[in-house]
This record gives sequence, C-alpha cells and structure tokens, in this order.
Amino acid sequence: MNRLNIANGRVEMVHGSGGRAMAELIDQLFAQAFDNEWLAQGNDQAQFTLPPGRVVMATDSHVVSPLFFPGGDIGSLSVHGTINDVAMSGARPCYLSAGFILEEGFPLADLKRIVDSMASASKEAGVPIVTGDTKVVERGKGDGVFINTTGIGVVPEGLNLSGDRAQPGDAILLSGTIGDHGVTILSLRESLGFEADIQSDSQSLNRLVAAMVEVVPEIRCMRDPTRGGLANTLNELAKQSGVGMQLFEKQIPVREPVRAACEFLGLDPLYVANEGKLIAICPQEKAEQLLKAMRAQPQGREAAIIGRVVEDSHHFVQMETVFGGNRMVDWLNGEQLPRIC
Amino acid sequence: MNRLNIANGRVEMVHGSGGRAMAELIDQLFAQAFDNEWLAQGNDQAQFTLPPGRVVMATDSHVVSPLFFPGGDIGSLSVHGTINDVAMSGARPCYLSAGFILEEGFPLADLKRIVDSMASASKEAGVPIVTGDTKVVERGKGDGVFINTTGIGVVPEGLNLSGDRAQPGDAILLSGTIGDHGVTILSLRESLGFEADIQSDSQSLNRLVAAMVEVVPEIRCMRDPTRGGLANTLNELAKQSGVGMQLFEKQIPVREPVRAACEFLGLDPLYVANEGKLIAICPQEKAEQLLKAMRAQPQGREAAIIGRVVEDSHHFVQMETVFGGNRMVDWLNGEQLPRIC
Repeated sequence: MNRLNIANGRVEMVHGSGGRAMAELIDQLFAQAFDNEWLAQGNDQAQFTLPPGRVVMATDSHVVSPLFFPGGDIGSLSVHGTINDVAMSGARPCYLSAGFILEEGFPLADLKRIVDSMASASKEAGVPIVTGDTKVVERGKGDGVFINTTGIGVVPEGLNLSGDRAQPGDAILLSGTIGDHGVTILSLRESLGFEADIQSDSQSLNRLVAAMVEVVPEIRCMRDPTRGGLANTLNELAKQSGVGMQLFEKQIPVREPVRAACEFLGLDPLYVANEGKLIAICPQEKAEQLLKAMRAQPQGREAAIIGRVVEDSHHFVQMETVFGGNRMVDWLNGEQLPRIC
Repeated sequence: MNRLNIANGRVEMVHGSGGRAMAELIDQLFAQAFDNEWLAQGNDQAQFTLPPGRVVMATDSHVVSPLFFPGGDIGSLSVHGTINDVAMSGARPCYLSAGFILEEGFPLADLKRIVDSMASASKEAGVPIVTGDTKVVERGKGDGVFINTTGIGVVPEGLNLSGDRAQPGDAILLSGTIGDHGVTILSLRESLGFEADIQSDSQSLNRLVAAMVEVVPEIRCMRDPTRGGLANTLNELAKQSGVGMQLFEKQIPVREPVRAACEFLGLDPLYVANEGKLIAICPQEKAEQLLKAMRAQPQGREAAIIGRVVEDSHHFVQMETVFGGNRMVDWLNGEQLPRIC
C-alpha cells in the first residue's frame, strides 16, 4: 500500500477502478474516519442485528452547492438529512450507508474534511456508517462530490405515525425557526454577506424525536420541511390526510437576520428549506405536553404551536397574517432555490 | 397536476425543487413504474417487517457510461448490482431504495426507459424498490443520470459467509464466463463493433445464491467480481483470509468473441468487470455438489471449479497457464476501464 497524499493530492480516475488505488483511498480515508466493527468486516455488505419492530428505510442523495457553508457541509448534511427522514416515522435510526460520486481532480484535503464531518455527525447522532461505495467520474461530468446516504431504523412498539393520519382539530407544532438553511446557502452562493449573521440549522433530530414519542406516543405524523420549506411540506400532509390547515403567522418563529435576508431577496421564508426542523401533528389535548417535551431538548428549544388541522375538502393550507388577514399558502410552484441539499 | 410530456420533455431544475413539478415527476414516472404498497405509503421513508435473522445492507452508486448497452442499461445494472452485493453474504435480498441524480436537459423519454428497466429488473428478482429520492443538477454538472441503490436483506439461519473464511484446501468456483460486461461497454464506448457478438452479463444472482446455500450451507464466502475483475476480487479474498490461491487457466470460461476482443484491445479478461457472475469458495469435499447445484440454475449453467486455496504467507494468487507455466495474478494496478458500473 502507498500512502495517500491527502494534503496535496487529488481524486484520480484510478480511485474508482476497484483496484489498489481504490483500496488505498478506502483504507486511509473512509475506513479511518468512520472506523467501526461493521466496516471492519471488510465485505461488500455490512451485517448486523436489529431490535424487533417495524423496519424503516429512507434514502437521500446530496448535491448541495457550495459544498461548505456556515453551520455544516455536504458531509454533515448528508448524515443529518437521512437520519431525519428515518426518524420522522418515529423510528430510532440504527445504521447508515454512504455512496460517493467523486469528480476527477477534487482535492483529497477537501474530501477528507467532508468525510471527517460525516464521521462527527454520525458519532454525535449515534448512528454508524456501516457500508459504502466510491465511484469517480471524469472532470466536468460531476461537481466535486455527490453523496447518497441511506438509513435504516426500527419503530418502537406502539407507534403508528403516517402523513395520512392528521385529523380536523389536531394541533400543528414546529420545532424551531424556519429558513436558516436555505437563506445561508443562497446568501453564500450569491456572495450577499448575510451568512455572517446566520448559519444552516443542519442537525440530527433523532434524539428530539425519541423524547417526543416517549411523552406523546399519539403523535399522528412528523415530517421535516426541507426542500420546498414549511409551506410545501404542510401542503403534502394536507393532501395526504385529506384535510385543510390553518396557520398563525405570528407564532411561526423566524430569526431576525433570516427575515431581513428574505425581504431583501424577495423570498418567503415559508418556502425556504430547513435541515434541522420538524413539523409534528398531534391531538389537540396533547399539544401542550408535546410542546413542553420538545422545548426540553436542545433541538426543540424554540418549538411552537403554529396552527391547527381543519376540515377542508380542497385541502388548502391558509395562514392568518400578522396583520389579521388570511392568505393562501399554496404549493411551491417553480424552483425557488436549486441544489439546496 | 399537469401531465408530464414524457415523449418530448426534458429534466428541468424545477424537477428537483421539492415542489409541484417534483411531485408530478415522482407520481407519473417513478411511482407508476415501481408501483408497490410501500411506495404507496407516500411518506419520506418506507416501513416493512423483516423475517428474523441477521440483516445485511449494501450500497452502490452507478455511473456507467454509456447509459444504454447490449444486455442492459444503467437502470437494470443498478438493480442487479446491489441485489448481488446483498446476496453475496448468503442473504435473501428483501428491499431496495433508489436515489437519482439527474442532469438538467436529460430527455424524459430516456429517463422513462431507464426507470422501466429498473422496474422490470426489480420485479424479475422479486425485490421491490420501496423508497427513493430525486435531485437535479445544472447542465454540465452531471452526466445524464447517476443512480444509487441500497439494498437490505436477511441471512437465513445457519449461514456464516465472510471473505476471511477461505482455508487452504478449499475449492474456488466461478458461476460462468468472465469479461462479458466490461468488453461490451468498452467496445461500445470506443465504437469497436465487438458488441454485435457479445453483451453484458448483467443479471441478478439472488436465486442462484439461494439454491447454492440450500445445498451447501458450508460455503465459506462468495463475492461478485465486478470492477477489477476476477483477478482483483480473488486478491481481495486471499488478503482477507490470509491465504494464497492457485488457479487453472484452462478451467476459466471465457466466451470466444470476448477473448478475441480482449486480444485486440490488449486486455486481460481476468481484470475485466462482470455484472452477473460470482466466485464461491467452499470445502473441497463439497465442491462437486455445489457445482452441480450451480449448473442446475440458469445463472450458473457454465459454472466451473477454477482453482484451490493454498497456504501462502504472501497471499499471492497464481495461475497455471494453458501452456503449463505458472504466472502471478497480481492486484489491478491503475485504471483499466473507467465508469464500467
């Protein structure tokens, strides 16, 4: 085995060949950072046992641009994103896989920074990366690095969360401020400078979810408002459950610099992507108890009850504005922010 | 919802936005082709039960170029590749996820052809695609379509296959001819015309594996010789098990047009990628029984015993040539064929 020149080396086509150079990249970069008993099995697949219960599987490919941003990078985002997709079912995320598509010429130092960031995010959340894959494409056929992560988890006994279970009268809760991730990425991409005051909210929500379902197992559904933002995710849930929703703008937390940046950019924070927030819908009589449980967790400190589920054969999402009027909160039409995750 | 113009439309950035256009693409293209009860759950994750046993997880990103080739395309290949990685542990593959990275401007008609091909491959193997993700990157930042698939499966009771279990005296079996996939791709890419007589061997091996472990549960290990070919995969296993290997060239099946193409191209078929073959190592006294079980399956009709495991502190793989000499079969050095899978 040769030593990789991580400080000054670059990804070469040979790193995707299946031969000696690929083995060196895997041993000296991925396996060292992710270091765990499953990767150490050294096979093309990982083997493990799962606790009893319904199994959950979620996948996400990450193409965020730029690769590094205040509050995270494509590595940590790829871990948070899939852990959150698994956790939204109420499940405890157990294991992750990681598939890399690298562009020829990408600096190994940047790749190491990304891989180390994945490793930290994985350790912090307690969800190991147990198997992986590396491909390399020619210069100009990719964009630095794309990362797919796939996660599996297990739903604790007695839970039954699904997007089709919201009922008129239910309360709608949000775990914190909206718009932070999307505005950070856009500001950075367009060199607007707002990112000095804001940062991505990218974080794993599995511990918050565990605390929530422990206290209120009757939660109807949870979903993380990523691409398309709060507005689009609520429209999805309204359609899936066949209900309407009434929101209250003054209860939806938005950080002041995010609000200012959105105004400047002509963006509506309701449509801006988040990477560390969740929406939960629960029976009205459990709402205060759930809110308290959420606020007791670091990822839910700024949680709020933001609206209620109503009967509506059109499945509209509406919002009482801070001025007292009522406005429609429609599906996202068109692309607001490409390559946000 | 608008109707997608599949005949003449193209992938646009908005198809990755998380909004209405993405929902249309998912509903009218992916969900229709993959159609199953888990996708119909409509959540960001799939839920299912697994039979008892050790769980296996494998992931593979696919970047093959060109996207369509004799014997398959990136869609069928992405299903076969991950099913095989799961199956090599002896497991029954149960579920797949699929993550797409699409390039802006890619024809929807080509995407539909690829997705339909994935759906056929998935149905044929009996392994449903239960959850997915779609991202879009700008023109020139991808290459048509990249597909990650991740698979999970369950190992039947009593099996214990791993790459570190080969022992001196064991027999080495190969399920069929080598080089077909790699030579097909290279010939097509370089417009050499050999692909008129040959085609990729891309296929799912899960049924072959099930038949093999049923008859000979004592199999030490299996692995599919994809990137890096037979030579590299055997070197991996020799290193992992701390043994040497002795092959017999005349017993290794190679199709005549593949041999001719390799000669013309200066390639050694031992290093050329396969996508529907496996290597199995088993105790010598079980070898004939295993061979018979393999030949009884369509995916193993041309199976052969190609060598034996030997003691060797250097972990060398050597081969008795058709001329009676002995040559070293070293690790692949350098890139033989980029983007083969």
